[in-house]
Amino acid sequence: MNLRPPAVTVIGLGSMGSALATVLLAAGHTTTVWNRSTHKTQPLLDRGARPAATQAEAIAASELIIVCVLDYDALHAVLDPVVDSLAGKTLVNLTSGSPEQAHEADSWARAHGVDYLDGAILTTPPGVGNPEMMFFYSGAPATFEAHRPTLAALGDPLYLGTDPGLACLYDSALLGLMWSTMTGWLHGTALVGAEKTAATTFTPVAIRWLSAVTGFMTAYATQVDAGRYPGDDATVDVQIAAIDHLLHAAASRGIDNALPELLKTIMERASAAGHGSASYASVIETLRNPVRR
Amino acid sequence: MNLRPPAVTVIGLGSMGSALATVLLAAGHTTTVWNRSTHKTQPLLDRGARPAATQAEAIAASELIIVCVLDYDALHAVLDPVVDSLAGKTLVNLTSGSPEQAHEADSWARAHGVDYLDGAILTTPPGVGNPEMMFFYSGAPATFEAHRPTLAALGDPLYLGTDPGLACLYDSALLGLMWSTMTGWLHGTALVGAEKTAATTFTPVAIRWLSAVTGFMTAYATQVDAGRYPGDDATVDVQIAAIDHLLHAAASRGIDNALPELLKTIMERASAAGHGSASYASVIETLRNPVRR
Repeated sequence: MNLRPPAVTVIGLGSMGSALATVLLAAGHTTTVWNRSTHKTQPLLDRGARPAATQAEAIAASELIIVCVLDYDALHAVLDPVVDSLAGKTLVNLTSGSPEQAHEADSWARAHGVDYLDGAILTTPPGVGNPEMMFFYSGAPATFEAHRPTLAALGDPLYLGTDPGLACLYDSALLGLMWSTMTGWLHGTALVGAEKTAATTFTPVAIRWLSAVTGFMTAYATQVDAGRYPGDDATVDVQIAAIDHLLHAAASRGIDNALPELLKTIMERASAAGHGSASYASVIETLRNPVRR
Repeated sequence: MNLRPPAVTVIGLGSMGSALATVLLAAGHTTTVWNRSTHKTQPLLDRGARPAATQAEAIAASELIIVCVLDYDALHAVLDPVVDSLAGKTLVNLTSGSPEQAHEADSWARAHGVDYLDGAILTTPPGVGNPEMMFFYSGAPATFEAHRPTLAALGDPLYLGTDPGLACLYDSALLGLMWSTMTGWLHGTALVGAEKTAATTFTPVAIRWLSAVTGFMTAYATQVDAGRYPGDDATVDVQIAAIDHLLHAAASRGIDNALPELLKTIMERASAAGHGSASYASVIETLRNPVRR
């Protein structure tokens, strides 16, 4: 039994790649780093990382290669010239992208004898290494299990399934939830701010309210899976009536209403489709059946 | 010292008003009820509520009158004819409305010698009586303090300030956050659902992610109050690049993209206004300065 943490190579040393390498070094892994522009390498060498003159030399140093670059074009620009050196190794790709790009990269890796996991990082660089932060992985389960102990140093590794596109798919879905939530919160913050309420006063109340909202989400998830949306607690038509108060209050304070106006339009489409007396969960039916524009 | 809970009158017995009266009865209050259509009264009389033949008779029965009707028009239709009987009493108005409607009702009450509190209920009828659920109140602090013990039976009473519009303002702001969050969640649920992931599988992960998002909100609230938005963790321009993956993934699965398209437009406006290297919190600046449409 080898208790020494395995060697890891990190390719791509932007703020996220540098955070990954820093955490791996702190966890005791022999960590070899490479970046297209070399000036980002020095701070990691100062922390004990091993340098590599070329990406092929970096790949040769470890059985596990983690890559985190700007996009999939950059991934191929860096790895295509040296793909033969990856054969028989494991490539964990934490570059952001779409499920389709992950599928394509998986096929490319498979064609060259590379074990491939696609991944997504659900935190910002300062959150890397925090065991509460989620990292998603998808691809062959045996590949994931073989490297789980190393990946666990970066955050909480969640395995989503064999379809390599799942990590990117979940990532996009959750980022969409984040942007929706944060924009709704900023709209509300602007609204109460117009009456001299500080963001730091409003936000703890908003966060407390979100915990109630997650209770609705849990109940509504069961409705979504059942395809039935009983409006026992609050109906779409009740929400449509209530959103007019928000539109009025925000408009009279000079705040941009594009977001609540769109939300009202979506609710009205749900109501027009026969869901007026159903719960808000029924809105998913209209999202699945887009208006042709 | 009188240990017997004070008498309360509840006017308006829709699902919310009925929930309020039910909880007050359970807490031992002598509770008099009145509703425009009498058939909603019987279930409460069966629980021990006292009937009233007219709204004036209902008002005469208690010093504290709680009203929860469809809207402010219904409020005035019910109370204007009997406003003289309210003089010297406390009216707690839990009807949903806008801050402007609350201001108007406060002036009306003041003109008739009525102590007025405007309130908002941050839960659905089944949540009434749960001490974790938030009830907002705004108006004279002495009026709130005098009735706090009674109001605490309904949920957690939070006093927001002397401006009577604050309860409605917070209510609208938080409902906007809820609709944004739930629609973003349903969009993500539809996206992963297109790849056979159940809503009940995705939602616990989404809820866990929201707890990370609330961490960003807490950090960004400080930025909003300072009017400075350092993009140390993630910039608006990075989010703009990432949202294209969501748009692509959702479009190729036939899901309506109006919400993420609007979010991207809002982000692009922030970037065009010079916030591309700032944090997402800078989006509040563009919400405060709407595009003239």
